[in-house]
Amino acid sequence: MIYFNNDYSEGCHPAVLRKLVNTNLEQTPGYGMDHYCAEAAAHIRRLCENDALDVHFLVGGTQTNLVVIDAALRPHQAALGAVSAHINVHETGAVEATGHKVLSVSSDDGKITAQQITEAAVSHRSDEAFEHISQPKMVYISNPTELGTIYTLQELEEISAACRDNGMYLFLDGARLGYGLTAQGNDVTLADLARLCDVFYIGGTKVGALFGEAVVFSNHAISEDFRYLMKQHGGMLAKGRLLGVQFCALMENGLYFEMGKHANRLADQIRDTLKSLGYSLLVPGVTNQVFAILPDALLEELAKRFSFTEQCRVNDRHRAVRFCTSWASTQANVDALCDELVRLSK
Amino acid sequence: MIYFNNDYSEGCHPAVLRKLVNTNLEQTPGYGMDHYCAEAAAHIRRLCENDALDVHFLVGGTQTNLVVIDAALRPHQAALGAVSAHINVHETGAVEATGHKVLSVSSDDGKITAQQITEAAVSHRSDEAFEHISQPKMVYISNPTELGTIYTLQELEEISAACRDNGMYLFLDGARLGYGLTAQGNDVTLADLARLCDVFYIGGTKVGALFGEAVVFSNHAISEDFRYLMKQHGGMLAKGRLLGVQFCALMENGLYFEMGKHANRLADQIRDTLKSLGYSLLVPGVTNQVFAILPDALLEELAKRFSFTEQCRVNDRHRAVRFCTSWASTQANVDALCDELVRLSK
Amino acid sequence: MIYFNNDYSEGCHPAVLRKLVNTNLEQTPGYGMDHYCAEAAAHIRRLCENDALDVHFLVGGTQTNLVVIDAALRPHQAALGAVSAHINVHETGAVEATGHKVLSVSSDDGKITAQQITEAAVSHRSDEAFEHISQPKMVYISNPTELGTIYTLQELEEISAACRDNGMYLFLDGARLGYGLTAQGNDVTLADLARLCDVFYIGGTKVGALFGEAVVFSNHAISEDFRYLMKQHGGMLAKGRLLGVQFCALMENGLYFEMGKHANRLADQIRDTLKSLGYSLLVPGVTNQVFAILPDALLEELAKRFSFTEQCRVNDRHRAVRFCTSWASTQANVDALCDELVRLSK
Amino acid sequence: MIYFNNDYSEGCHPAVLRKLVNTNLEQTPGYGMDHYCAEAAAHIRRLCENDALDVHFLVGGTQTNLVVIDAALRPHQAALGAVSAHINVHETGAVEATGHKVLSVSSDDGKITAQQITEAAVSHRSDEAFEHISQPKMVYISNPTELGTIYTLQELEEISAACRDNGMYLFLDGARLGYGLTAQGNDVTLADLARLCDVFYIGGTKVGALFGEAVVFSNHAISEDFRYLMKQHGGMLAKGRLLGVQFCALMENGLYFEMGKHANRLADQIRDTLKSLGYSLLVPGVTNQVFAILPDALLEELAKRFSFTEQCRVNDRHRAVRFCTSWASTQANVDALCDELVRLSK
Repeated sequence: MIYFNNDYSEGCHPAVLRKLVNTNLEQTPGYGMDHYCAEAAAHIRRLCENDALDVHFLVGGTQTNLVVIDAALRPHQAALGAVSAHINVHETGAVEATGHKVLSVSSDDGKITAQQITEAAVSHRSDEAFEHISQPKMVYISNPTELGTIYTLQELEEISAACRDNGMYLFLDGARLGYGLTAQGNDVTLADLARLCDVFYIGGTKVGALFGEAVVFSNHAISEDFRYLMKQHGGMLAKGRLLGVQFCALMENGLYFEMGKHANRLADQIRDTLKSLGYSLLVPGVTNQVFAILPDALLEELAKRFSFTEQCRVNDRHRAVRFCTSWASTQANVDALCDELVRLSK
Repeated sequence: MIYFNNDYSEGCHPAVLRKLVNTNLEQTPGYGMDHYCAEAAAHIRRLCENDALDVHFLVGGTQTNLVVIDAALRPHQAALGAVSAHINVHETGAVEATGHKVLSVSSDDGKITAQQITEAAVSHRSDEAFEHISQPKMVYISNPTELGTIYTLQELEEISAACRDNGMYLFLDGARLGYGLTAQGNDVTLADLARLCDVFYIGGTKVGALFGEAVVFSNHAISEDFRYLMKQHGGMLAKGRLLGVQFCALMENGLYFEMGKHANRLADQIRDTLKSLGYSLLVPGVTNQVFAILPDALLEELAKRFSFTEQCRVNDRHRAVRFCTSWASTQANVDALCDELVRLSK
Repeated sequence: MIYFNNDYSEGCHPAVLRKLVNTNLEQTPGYGMDHYCAEAAAHIRRLCENDALDVHFLVGGTQTNLVVIDAALRPHQAALGAVSAHINVHETGAVEATGHKVLSVSSDDGKITAQQITEAAVSHRSDEAFEHISQPKMVYISNPTELGTIYTLQELEEISAACRDNGMYLFLDGARLGYGLTAQGNDVTLADLARLCDVFYIGGTKVGALFGEAVVFSNHAISEDFRYLMKQHGGMLAKGRLLGVQFCALMENGLYFEMGKHANRLADQIRDTLKSLGYSLLVPGVTNQVFAILPDALLEELAKRFSFTEQCRVNDRHRAVRFCTSWASTQANVDALCDELVRLSK
Repeated sequence: MIYFNNDYSEGCHPAVLRKLVNTNLEQTPGYGMDHYCAEAAAHIRRLCENDALDVHFLVGGTQTNLVVIDAALRPHQAALGAVSAHINVHETGAVEATGHKVLSVSSDDGKITAQQITEAAVSHRSDEAFEHISQPKMVYISNPTELGTIYTLQELEEISAACRDNGMYLFLDGARLGYGLTAQGNDVTLADLARLCDVFYIGGTKVGALFGEAVVFSNHAISEDFRYLMKQHGGMLAKGRLLGVQFCALMENGLYFEMGKHANRLADQIRDTLKSLGYSLLVPGVTNQVFAILPDALLEELAKRFSFTEQCRVNDRHRAVRFCTSWASTQANVDALCDELVRLSK
């Protein structure tokens, strides 16, 4: 069985593991106060071209989302995202468990627009009973989105401006950021994100680390006392240096971006094969997630040798499935998948 | 200016006030342990034809919703309601502030169906990642709904069965229950509600009391230790007897239902006038809220003498507005409104 | 049986009730947007000699404590009070239910000192692991305290300075403020409180209203968006005018202070009688609560005609009990209590 | 500089690391549904001599404490522990952030007694205003305690009985359990803990793992739906197999207990040296934490070559410090510390 289920099936990239092994017996202070965390933060500031950024390391994506949102918002304030946003549908109400409502706007491709943000803000302010409604204060977007689509620089500039104009924070979930920043057609850089977002994170868990997300704040008002909140929510790792060591390995020599390119190239190969066979994609993604619409009969055969995830039923005889590549995917396995798609389509 | 804005513009029905005045200097224990609360609870048990019900008194609707839901649910569990449910859109995230997500299903008329409940439950259980999604555990409905519509006994029987079959609690918000139980075509009784719901409440604030909601539990598992939760959420009134006294006045001689009938009759008169003039209703309500679709020009004139609330724009030249009657509305004022509607429609 | 159990056994002062009756059928906007709330706030600003104060009305003390504290603090911040503080021991964890820890310092008489505040702040900042400890950010005091003692102006000046110097908010719970400001030896005014506290409240529930607490903010940073928080926590009364009407009645002609003096004078009479009979007080109170240490045998006899509350056991043969007077206590009943104390002590 | 600061200064035991390296590229399902987690759970059930235990793996101690307590308690219920309990003083209010108060009882040595538990329960139930007070429902103890002391089997039997008799859950924090179960004089086994506690955990972070705590539930009522709560609180590791792999390495060949013995033996050597030099211990510990009372002058000298943590000042010229050994401490370093203590004491 060859797995294309997700991008967290293996441990970590060998170079990351090597650095963990090499530093294993060194003694360091706990809780992220070690020199590896400091170095990793410095790498990130350099890549973001901004020396004033606050950088903190957390273990996973849901944890990061809930700690950041809870740090930023007062009790009556809400996060606003796409109806398909991870915080809205796949985190067991983690944000609500900190007391904050998640407000949603419609989205077909996982993205939201500056106009939707402005409309939500104006609609809130102009409601006679606005104090009876959760106040939209933080915009949550992910890049790539849940559906593997990415924002253009122009879109992010507009979203950022809409947030600023309406007194809202912009928070970008970058759980798969490595795949987004290296996708074909991407024109966004880390420096852009640092400039346009109040806070964003660089995902390690899904891009080659054992675990870890690097949270980057350009807005110091919401990062004030952030370590208290990390601790309070159980997100301050005792051996915090594990996060620092891993992010050093990811960031010091461009490994993070190499892995992104590798996975995207293999996903492009799958997309090209599907197109050449006449199949449609559910959304026109450019990153490591391929959402393909395929006949039930073909999928039944395909599942005998390949593992993938179900997305949704499209019609009586077709459904959408997801093939996910990663830093760990091999050319041989992707070739095998493409060959099998060709064979089953004859 | 004549007001049809809402059903809480005045103080309370004179009979309620009289009882408050007459009992004012009596000394009683605090926090709802007085004999008036006991009597009021006994009246309600009698009307519900069930001696085993737990009855508690709270001050307002939002407070009642959040305390009941927090008492019933474990942290990962959610309340499921119509997208227009009061807890979803008009309580500033009060339920989320207790840590629980509000899940919603679509609804045009404020009502939801047994089928929607079953689908939500089945969809949750059958999701591969169900533990990553808030668990729908309590169904929240209101009767009348936000749009003044009411459930039939048949619908409630089906909803109750769907809840039972799927291990969910049924909670009915009766903030305007007095108007619902006395509406034309209603076939539901308090005894039905006590039989079909795990918990429901009889609203006083909008039906003739200064304030107060009587919460009725048939499911003792969720009412266990309820008074602790009332206190914790700031909902245990020091002079709790004020709630007992008022609900005695409402319940002991049928006053609650008389007031409901009075308001509904006046609302029916408005509806009949609108229909005779060829205007549509946004929803075909039968209770004290009338949602009328009227021309902008007419509304502009009408607003010179009458006050009402905006609901939504319907098209370029029409919008929907709400006229709300109550126990305090007078025949003369309703006649004046109807006459003016006729005059402006010529 | 004559009751000295507490100061919330009756309804409200006849003058308050009269105003409720006289305004009952007037139509007003809901949720505290009516002219009575505006007038009551104006009275309070005038008495506080500060036109810039934000004034809001809530229903009860626990509700007020939890909404104010939740409005003021970020998630990792705590309220600091006496170990006997109401929020620490008698509100079923209401503050914790909003996510905030209550930190406590020792106190024999219900009061805390500027030095204790400074020590707590310094101790926190100087702890190596300070981020692992809740941050003391708001000082909570009550005046009168749980034990009926009051702060001097000098003490409040020092406490306020200690808070300012350490970046902490000062919040004064005035659930029984009317009894404190009119006590013998008191040198504190409403204007002092408005000047020295970030927020405080004027209690109505225990001083002659049916219910109601008037929250007064001099610090606008923590009152920003306060009405959202009131709504979110179920503390925004639909018929908010009931609070405005009552506080007008309390404040417009000095009624609030007359009631305080009345109750204190009767409590002084009880204290004088106890002293003349050679009994001790648990604490040397000056307000409407008398904490007397009396022999078990005497208390057994006394309980046959008088009702009071148990405080604590003092030794094998004595315990402390509380006699509470109020605006509603009569001279005749207090004379009867004092006579009986004399008779049983012979 | 030689470090005796804590037991989480290094990475993990080489055998644990080896297993992580060897399994790194294996593909497994995420979120703890892999076969390593299943195997590790089976090892733990075997060692606990109970096939029916629910075992879950979390990342760190604070996270474990907050998720377990939140899973077990209804909103008005509190955890009861020693005043020095980690959840009370060193987790930034993590438990309160889930809405629950932490109640405390006095303790000199970090331990609490069955009698204290019973007294707390009886005191709560017998309070007239019990519904105004957080309900003590779960007893939280740690073994070893914060001060390195351990419970005897007899003490745990009594505590467990006191909990059962009063309807309370017993939760044992075993962040350093490996050091406790292998200490001189210990007579408690894993099987005892599984029998006596409703839930406890086996700490990995401080005993040789990179991170990880194994939570063991014998009470299925509180473990129901536990994975939802893990996810909701950001505690469900995407690559959950990292926890399974590590706990397999710790448990499959007795490594966990070997490491405990090693650290305790070295700590005993330090204790013996201190005693032979006439110094006192702050508490008579038997595990890997040594709390020594030493002269300021000696500590000043000692700090030039050795790193340790400050505990508290004892008198004008002495203070208590902590030396902490671990699985990673070497005989040579402990010899060096003991020699220096001897040298500086001449």
